[in-house]
Amino acid sequence: MADVFEKALQEHYKWQGKIKTELTVDLKSKEDLALAYSPGVAQACREIVTDESKAYDLTWKHRTIGIISDGSAVLGLGNIGPYGAMPVMEGKAALFKAFGDVDAIPICLDTQDPDEIIKMVKALEPGFGGFNLEDIAAPQCVYIERELKKICKVPIFHDDQHGTAIVVIAGLINALKLVKKKPEALKVVVLGVGAAGSSIIHMLKAFGVKDIHGFNSKGQLHMDHFDSYDFLAQELVQIINPSQSKKTLAEEMVGADVFIGVSAANLVSPAMVASMNTQPIVFAMANPDPEISYDDAKAAGAYIVGTGRSDYPNQVNNVLAFPGIFKGALAARVPQITEAMKLAAAYGIASVIEAAALTPDYIIPSVFDERVVNAVVQAIQAQANQAL
Amino acid sequence: MADVFEKALQEHYKWQGKIKTELTVDLKSKEDLALAYSPGVAQACREIVTDESKAYDLTWKHRTIGIISDGSAVLGLGNIGPYGAMPVMEGKAALFKAFGDVDAIPICLDTQDPDEIIKMVKALEPGFGGFNLEDIAAPQCVYIERELKKICKVPIFHDDQHGTAIVVIAGLINALKLVKKKPEALKVVVLGVGAAGSSIIHMLKAFGVKDIHGFNSKGQLHMDHFDSYDFLAQELVQIINPSQSKKTLAEEMVGADVFIGVSAANLVSPAMVASMNTQPIVFAMANPDPEISYDDAKAAGAYIVGTGRSDYPNQVNNVLAFPGIFKGALAARVPQITEAMKLAAAYGIASVIEAAALTPDYIIPSVFDERVVNAVVQAIQAQANQAL
Repeated sequence: MADVFEKALQEHYKWQGKIKTELTVDLKSKEDLALAYSPGVAQACREIVTDESKAYDLTWKHRTIGIISDGSAVLGLGNIGPYGAMPVMEGKAALFKAFGDVDAIPICLDTQDPDEIIKMVKALEPGFGGFNLEDIAAPQCVYIERELKKICKVPIFHDDQHGTAIVVIAGLINALKLVKKKPEALKVVVLGVGAAGSSIIHMLKAFGVKDIHGFNSKGQLHMDHFDSYDFLAQELVQIINPSQSKKTLAEEMVGADVFIGVSAANLVSPAMVASMNTQPIVFAMANPDPEISYDDAKAAGAYIVGTGRSDYPNQVNNVLAFPGIFKGALAARVPQITEAMKLAAAYGIASVIEAAALTPDYIIPSVFDERVVNAVVQAIQAQANQAL
Repeated sequence: MADVFEKALQEHYKWQGKIKTELTVDLKSKEDLALAYSPGVAQACREIVTDESKAYDLTWKHRTIGIISDGSAVLGLGNIGPYGAMPVMEGKAALFKAFGDVDAIPICLDTQDPDEIIKMVKALEPGFGGFNLEDIAAPQCVYIERELKKICKVPIFHDDQHGTAIVVIAGLINALKLVKKKPEALKVVVLGVGAAGSSIIHMLKAFGVKDIHGFNSKGQLHMDHFDSYDFLAQELVQIINPSQSKKTLAEEMVGADVFIGVSAANLVSPAMVASMNTQPIVFAMANPDPEISYDDAKAAGAYIVGTGRSDYPNQVNNVLAFPGIFKGALAARVPQITEAMKLAAAYGIASVIEAAALTPDYIIPSVFDERVVNAVVQAIQAQANQAL
């Protein structure tokens, strides 16, 4: 790891910024200036004043989003603030461009007050076709996203919540084909109920899973602890764990069909995996070190293992989702990315691997599989058309 | 004019945005992703957390600015709001790129509350190396700029104020070479004391002019009217018109050496120009129709005439100033664009035309003269070095 860090730093000194702007117009003659700027540009302004939706036809709004962060929960680095967060947001912008041809502008805000962030993103709306929230700490990230969805006319998407969830569900869709189980019949244990974990649980419900058990650092989510939870955990405890069990993780793993971890390294033992139902499915996505390593999980009997790592099979990588999500949302000019669109995106990602090609080590396509982005775009557009 | 508007609109429909983003990195392999994004990018973040100034070396901050508008005073269109303003801000961004290789991001804010704008620009600071304020109504534009200069670590520049002023002073520098007059000996009449006019008057003082007479729609700026002025006019009346004259424009133009108009069409008559001192200099910059046309001013005896129009000689065009101003400020990493830098920039622009090449119709270089931007950059850098 030391090597990749040192090399990445050297490269960053060479790049001096991972994206740049380019012209789409010529500005070489007086006439060029008169058309792109004064006086001709006034006609494009008037057109938008008359009909605000023309902003999508006459400016970059149809292909441009803002990536908003306050630097409060950056990668594994924690609350490093907006200056330190910039290289990550630039990297994210580069991924948006490379994988989705979406023009994304990194915007690191020097405030961590959720209401200030909401006000500022709302004020930035005229020039952007959507906003990707990034690396904002839970639970305020969820509050910020929900409030913005209420007041904005463009899509708001918090990738840390939904990006991971969409790819996990995509993996689960394909995993279930291999193990021939139905969502309705699954027992699923989710470890970690922050931004990603809560969105995963909501998507599991939408996917049809009924028996979900959530754990956080205090143990199993349970009504008895309701008052000590943040609002995210409070919401979840009301929709999962119908039997109000108060088990340990090890106890609840017994007979589980699926384990999904978005927590921390080494929290799952081989014995826990061994105690799961037949053909257990393990998504251990703590980064860089998973809840249980691919090799240990396999040795303990896991049938399918996914992690966040690119050096093992079935990498759960958000980049499979977010470029297509926004490319599709912009193309369809939808005002929101709905729950139905997210689930459709998961089915889209899963569909890239034909049934015959599925194996326990190949349930999630490669991030470099060029079919993925189009599958997601088409899924979003199909949902947008249904909603009309 | 109808033609240019119709053609510009058609072109805007084709362009669908006059700038776009591009990658400066490869993202084609797992290793590429590991360096530009997770996990390698974390090292660039850590470096910036340790030393915030490294943001200039490791992100796009060293070459990127925000163009901020609230759409309250757009071109000749007035207060059309932030949606309608976007094509202009994109056009400005394109000019920054084409003429200064500065990456400029158009940011139209959906608020016209000056204190909100100040708070938001301050919050945007982590990811930008400076901010160009644009098309914000006077006098709040001046308040916003001054407050931001107090609290920001990056340069703030309101182009509507200072861009025009710098180019006018550049023209005046060369005009005085032709008429062999000194700033100290000039009588100057300025019509219009909003954003541009007030900055012109401040720069005239810095340039050495002592006898300045300002007019607004109420007539000559005068202490008797002090309480009816906005704060900009209040400031000006205290530094100009030492004799407290209460003349009409026609009366004060008698014997004037220089007329500078940033007001409205046709406010200056041929008789007024005819009443000026020998070899009168007339900058009539109301757009698109000047205070007096080039032809009428010349016929009335003006020796040198400048306008805002590209179809007449001596076009006073901000694009001569702002790309080099920011390119130089970013290169020198100055925290402010000082009064001395603005005056140096004016001398830099003027210096592009050698003395032997000066004529009454060629005191201001063409916007396509490639020497201009470097002259401005060098002027800014020289001032930055002096300040060290």
